[in-house]
Amino acid sequence: MKKLYIVSTGAGGTNYLTREAIDAINDSEVIVGYTKYIKELKLEFGDKELFNSGMTKEIARCDQAIEIAKTGKTTTIVSNGDVNVFGMATLVVELMDEKDLWDEVEIVSVPGVSSVFAAASKVGAPLSQDFAVVSLSDRLTDPDMINKRIHNALDADFVLAIYNPKSKKRTKPYLDFLEILSKFDERIVTIAQNVGREAKEHIAITTSTDIINQGLEHEDVGMSTLIIVGNSNSRLTKNGKILTPRGYLHKYETSGDLK
Amino acid sequence: MKKLYIVSTGAGGTNYLTREAIDAINDSEVIVGYTKYIKELKLEFGDKELFNSGMTKEIARCDQAIEIAKTGKTTTIVSNGDVNVFGMATLVVELMDEKDLWDEVEIVSVPGVSSVFAAASKVGAPLSQDFAVVSLSDRLTDPDMINKRIHNALDADFVLAIYNPKSKKRTKPYLDFLEILSKFDERIVTIAQNVGREAKEHIAITTSTDIINQGLEHEDVGMSTLIIVGNSNSRLTKNGKILTPRGYLHKYETSGDLK
Repeated sequence: MKKLYIVSTGAGGTNYLTREAIDAINDSEVIVGYTKYIKELKLEFGDKELFNSGMTKEIARCDQAIEIAKTGKTTTIVSNGDVNVFGMATLVVELMDEKDLWDEVEIVSVPGVSSVFAAASKVGAPLSQDFAVVSLSDRLTDPDMINKRIHNALDADFVLAIYNPKSKKRTKPYLDFLEILSKFDERIVTIAQNVGREAKEHIAITTSTDIINQGLEHEDVGMSTLIIVGNSNSRLTKNGKILTPRGYLHKYETSGDLK
Repeated sequence: MKKLYIVSTGAGGTNYLTREAIDAINDSEVIVGYTKYIKELKLEFGDKELFNSGMTKEIARCDQAIEIAKTGKTTTIVSNGDVNVFGMATLVVELMDEKDLWDEVEIVSVPGVSSVFAAASKVGAPLSQDFAVVSLSDRLTDPDMINKRIHNALDADFVLAIYNPKSKKRTKPYLDFLEILSKFDERIVTIAQNVGREAKEHIAITTSTDIINQGLEHEDVGMSTLIIVGNSNSRLTKNGKILTPRGYLHKYETSGDLK
């Protein structure tokens, strides 16, 4: 059967590519993706036919990938981070279903390292406990629902990861987020920019008070930013990293027996 | 400086290892891990010194890894899935802080493919939207807090991933989860066992009604099971996979312009 891979390239460049992802790309004749990511892959997979398109062209890009696969060329559409985390999986599956191509093109989805995990790995152990992931992009989600999710997550003491906090034109959801955050006790906050892209990566550890006070002026919060809000137990380690303890050391001996 | 890597091996065997993870292991003299995972790595990295220990020995294992790294041997401690998702990162960071070894041993954490993403990739596009991740293990978390997290997540229409649903001895949190789930409209549910371990992997798509009705008797729900509860918009595709639409196709033309 004809085949279309939806490949997670992981956060950042190509360092988080998994074996399965590399195998999928190698198995493909054609790679389709967002211009910036295609550029990075070109260095290694230059023998493939490459198609790129701009950031707002997601539907066209997925459609193109499906149409190319339909011609019989095994194709990969790449998606930064994990394909299921605000990535390309949804659109490809939705278009495949609309076009009713399931008997013609096989879809193989390859999971990857989402930026929340990449960012977490750089600042100690901030997740470690139950967590929630919310995108502040209100292009496709009702703003009230976004706010409710933020409230409910903080209210149940989840560690909370925020994707797409704001853009030049879209600032209201971020201000709403800060407003909700201000109703809770202070939390440790990680602000991660361009995770996994060594030259541009910038990760700051701060507090909810700081981001609330700085509002839209915070220099670290922009388009390619991920924010991780710790839970009420998150704390700084002696070397200034973040630890969200699970409670092992208080409850168990090193042997594994209960204290 | 002496070095200890905390390496995510991804869900399942070694197929989800990233380049960074392979580099970290290759850079190490010693690998420490849970017996089952060490066995899998042994086939490829047999030239390393390998230390393994049982499942309940997490603290001892992390302590051992730190102590070995302290002797000057570059060491990797492996953690299935992602190190930050109920993995080894927390314990290593907590022990490092207690021992105050930050000036002596450098910790490098390597992110990976968590089983929630691996499972999602096998059943279409079930995540795609804001999601929450909750472990039902009450060994270290207050049961009331677990229940509150489940309630708050469903109440805000998060896609909800449940780790560690039950064990032979621990069934109450799972029954509580079903009880809370029964208060909401029916949802599509994925039950994934042994994700990424080809021979043993088993993934079932069903409904919340089914798992509520079957209670503790459900044959697919056990120790190595991950459950993904869709949100209120999740639906089955024509080929029986799951789609949690983000709404693109209703709002935008293929060109990317607003409809």
